[in-house]
Amino acid sequence: MECDTLVIGAGIMGLSTAYYMKKRDPSKKIVVIDKYSGPAQGNSAKSEGGFRNIFTSETNYLLADSSIDYFFHMEELGHKLKMESIGYLWLFSEEQYEKIRPAVEGLKERGVELEVYNREEIEAKVPSLMTDFGDDEEAEMLGLKNVDYGVYGRKCGSLDADALVRAYEAEFLKLGGEVKYNTEATELIVKPEMELEIPGEPFVWQEKVISGVKTSDDEITAGTTVVACGVWAHQLMDPVGLDSFQRPKKRQLFAFKDPKLEPVMRTEGLNHENALPLIVLPTAGIFLKAELSEGSIWLGCADTFPRKFELEEDPQAEDDYYTNNIYHALVMYFGEFEDVRPMNSWAGQYAINSFDETPVIYGEKGFVYVGCGSGSGIMKGDAIGRVADALCAGEAEVELHGGRKLSVAKLGIKNRAVEHEEFVI
Amino acid sequence: MECDTLVIGAGIMGLSTAYYMKKRDPSKKIVVIDKYSGPAQGNSAKSEGGFRNIFTSETNYLLADSSIDYFFHMEELGHKLKMESIGYLWLFSEEQYEKIRPAVEGLKERGVELEVYNREEIEAKVPSLMTDFGDDEEAEMLGLKNVDYGVYGRKCGSLDADALVRAYEAEFLKLGGEVKYNTEATELIVKPEMELEIPGEPFVWQEKVISGVKTSDDEITAGTTVVACGVWAHQLMDPVGLDSFQRPKKRQLFAFKDPKLEPVMRTEGLNHENALPLIVLPTAGIFLKAELSEGSIWLGCADTFPRKFELEEDPQAEDDYYTNNIYHALVMYFGEFEDVRPMNSWAGQYAINSFDETPVIYGEKGFVYVGCGSGSGIMKGDAIGRVADALCAGEAEVELHGGRKLSVAKLGIKNRAVEHEEFVI
Repeated sequence: MECDTLVIGAGIMGLSTAYYMKKRDPSKKIVVIDKYSGPAQGNSAKSEGGFRNIFTSETNYLLADSSIDYFFHMEELGHKLKMESIGYLWLFSEEQYEKIRPAVEGLKERGVELEVYNREEIEAKVPSLMTDFGDDEEAEMLGLKNVDYGVYGRKCGSLDADALVRAYEAEFLKLGGEVKYNTEATELIVKPEMELEIPGEPFVWQEKVISGVKTSDDEITAGTTVVACGVWAHQLMDPVGLDSFQRPKKRQLFAFKDPKLEPVMRTEGLNHENALPLIVLPTAGIFLKAELSEGSIWLGCADTFPRKFELEEDPQAEDDYYTNNIYHALVMYFGEFEDVRPMNSWAGQYAINSFDETPVIYGEKGFVYVGCGSGSGIMKGDAIGRVADALCAGEAEVELHGGRKLSVAKLGIKNRAVEHEEFVI
Repeated sequence: MECDTLVIGAGIMGLSTAYYMKKRDPSKKIVVIDKYSGPAQGNSAKSEGGFRNIFTSETNYLLADSSIDYFFHMEELGHKLKMESIGYLWLFSEEQYEKIRPAVEGLKERGVELEVYNREEIEAKVPSLMTDFGDDEEAEMLGLKNVDYGVYGRKCGSLDADALVRAYEAEFLKLGGEVKYNTEATELIVKPEMELEIPGEPFVWQEKVISGVKTSDDEITAGTTVVACGVWAHQLMDPVGLDSFQRPKKRQLFAFKDPKLEPVMRTEGLNHENALPLIVLPTAGIFLKAELSEGSIWLGCADTFPRKFELEEDPQAEDDYYTNNIYHALVMYFGEFEDVRPMNSWAGQYAINSFDETPVIYGEKGFVYVGCGSGSGIMKGDAIGRVADALCAGEAEVELHGGRKLSVAKLGIKNRAVEHEEFVI
C-alpha cells in the first residue's frame, strides 16, 4: 500500500493529527493504522478522563485551554463527549501552598478562572472531607497533611476519553480518511534519499529518510510517517536511533459505587451539579472525581517514585494497591470509604517525558513523532493534533482553536522552549 | 556493609565524583563499586579520547574548558595522561559553514582559541586531503561535500581516557577512598523515611528514600547513593521510576598503522608536532586523529540516524562497517586509505541524552544521578565530578578548576538551563 501520510496509532494523538492533516488537504491519502481492533484501545480509553486548564506552564495552558474550548465546540456539533465542568479542587497544606503560591498568583494574572479557598470554605463546600487531623496519632504515623488551602479551577472537569477519540475518528472518516485496525507497525523502513541499488544501503554517507513501515502482514510506503502510538513509540523508534523521550509508567484507577459514599458525592456551591469535583488530596497524590454518567467515584493515585518505568502490554490494577495501600490514607480524609471496596478497577500507562512533562512533537525528513502525553495528552489532544499537522505542513506557527497562536518549534527538540510545570498529577 | 556515600560505576564520572566528595570531607566513608574488574572498563576506556573546548553551549564550554585545564594540571602533578594538543579541525562545505557561522562567531567572542581556514589554507596545512571533487561522478553519487572551510580549535586534542580514569582512582585512593571491583549493583533499595515495620512498606503515602543497593553478593547501606554507571544507569533507575534520560548507542573505532598512511599523518603548521589533528570530514560525521603514542590513526563515524539505541553488554565493531561503508567516502577524501585495512577495531557505547546532549546531574533524597555523557563525558569529567559533589553537599553553585562558577541546578532537571549545542560529533 502507498499513501501520502501514514499515522501509526489510533489514540487521541494519532486521530487528532490525522484529522487536521486531512482537513488541511482532503485530496491527500491519509491512513491511520493501529494494532488494536478499534480506536483508543491503547491507553486513551483507559484514562481517568479529566480535563483542566490549570497549568503553570504557558505552553501547557495554551494546549489544554484551547483543546477544552474545542471539545465543548464538538459537543455543540453533536458529539456526545460527556463534558462535565465539575472543576478540579487541588488541596494543599499550609506548607505546600506556600511553595505553590507564586505559581497560583501567576495563573490568576493570566486570567485562569480559579478560586483559592481556605479551610473553612473547603469544609463548607466538601462537608465529608476531614481537613484537620489535630494530634491524631494514626494521621501522624501515616504522615497525612492537613487541608489548609484549596485551588479550585472552573474550566476543569471530566470527559469521556473514548468518545472523544471516536469523535476525531468520525470527523476524519467523514473527510475521506482511512483507518485500518488490527494492523501493527513492526518496523520503520529507512531508505536512502537517492537509491543506488547497491547492496548494503543505506550507507553512512547517504542522506536517509523514513519511507514507511513494515506491518504484521504488509509494507506501507508513505511520504510522511507519523508515529503517534504512545508508550509503544520507542519500540519503533529505538531501532532507528530516534528518541521517543518517554518512559511508560502504569497508572491504576478504581471505581466505586456504594450508597455509603453518597455524602462524598455531594458538594456545595462548587459546581452547577453540586457534584464531587476532581479532588487532589494533599497526601500521596491521591485523587478522586465523580463519574456522573454512572453515578460512581473514580479514584487514582499519582504514584511517581518508586513506581517503575516499564512497558506492559496489558497492565492491570493490583488487588492490594487500593486495599492495603491507598486505603489507609484515603479513609482518613473521607471516612465514608471505610470498608467500601472498588466495584471495578483497571490500569493504563502514562508516556512520561520526565524532562518537562510536556508533549514532544518533532520531525525529521519523512517522519513526525507526536508523543509524551505525560498524563495530560487527552485534554491537550486537539492542540496537539494541530501542532503536528502544522509541523508536517512546514509551518512555523500554528493557530489553535479560538485563534491563539503557538510556535511549532517550542514543542520540538532543537529549539524546545517549554516552561516548567508546577501542577502535575 | 555501610558507608556514607556509595558510588556505582568506576568510570570517569563515578571516580571523579568520588574523588571530589572524598576531598571535601576525607572523614566520610566513600565507596565506589563496579561490576568490572578495574576502572574504566565500561565505556570510558573505549572512548576515542578526544578533548575539545569547542562547544557553542556556554555550559558545555565551561565543563570542558575547565576540565581540560585540570587535566593538564594533573599531568604537572605527575599523572601521565598523554595530553596531546593536536587540535580539532572541523571541515565544512560552504553551505554547512553558512549555517554554523553565527555559532563560530559566538565562540570567537567568548575568546575560544580557534582559527577559521579557507580551502587554500586547509590544502596547505593538510596536503593529503582532497577538498574539491569538481564534477567527479563518484563523489556526486556518494553525495560527498567539498571542503570549503575549516574551524580549527587549539585547546583540543587527544588524551588517554584509561589513564585519566586511573588518575582519579589513584587520587581517590590516596585520600583513603575505597573501591570494590567485581561488585555489581543489581537493585536500588527504597525505604520509607520513617519505617513502621508493617508489611507492604513503602506505602504510597510514605516519604521514601534510596537507602543503598543490593549487589551480586551483598547489600550496601549508604547515606547517599550515586548512580554513575553510564549506559547501564537505566537498568537500576527504571525499576524505581527514576529517569536516566539516556539511550545507549554504539560507536565503533578503527585503528590504522600502515606506511601508506604516512602522508595523512603529516600536517603543516596546525600544531607543534605537525601531526594529524582530530579532523571531522564534512560528510557522514567521519572523523580521524593521530594517536601519537602508537603512531597510528584512529577513525570513527558519528552515525546517528538510523543507528539503533540499544544496550549491548559487549558491543563489537562490525567487520563490514569500515570496509563496505565508511571506506567509500573516506578514500575519496584521503586517497592514501586505498586498500588499507584497520589493524584493530573496537566499540563502546555513548549514553546519549537526545534532548540537549549535555550531562544530567540531579538528586532526590539519598540519591544522585550523574550521567548522559552523550559522547563528551570524558573531556568534561573533571567538572562533572565537581558538580555532582556540590549537589550532594547541597551547594547551589560550584567552583570549577580555575575559579569559574556554575549553577548546579543548570545541569539538573527541574530548573535545567542548558544552551543548544551546535558542535556535536
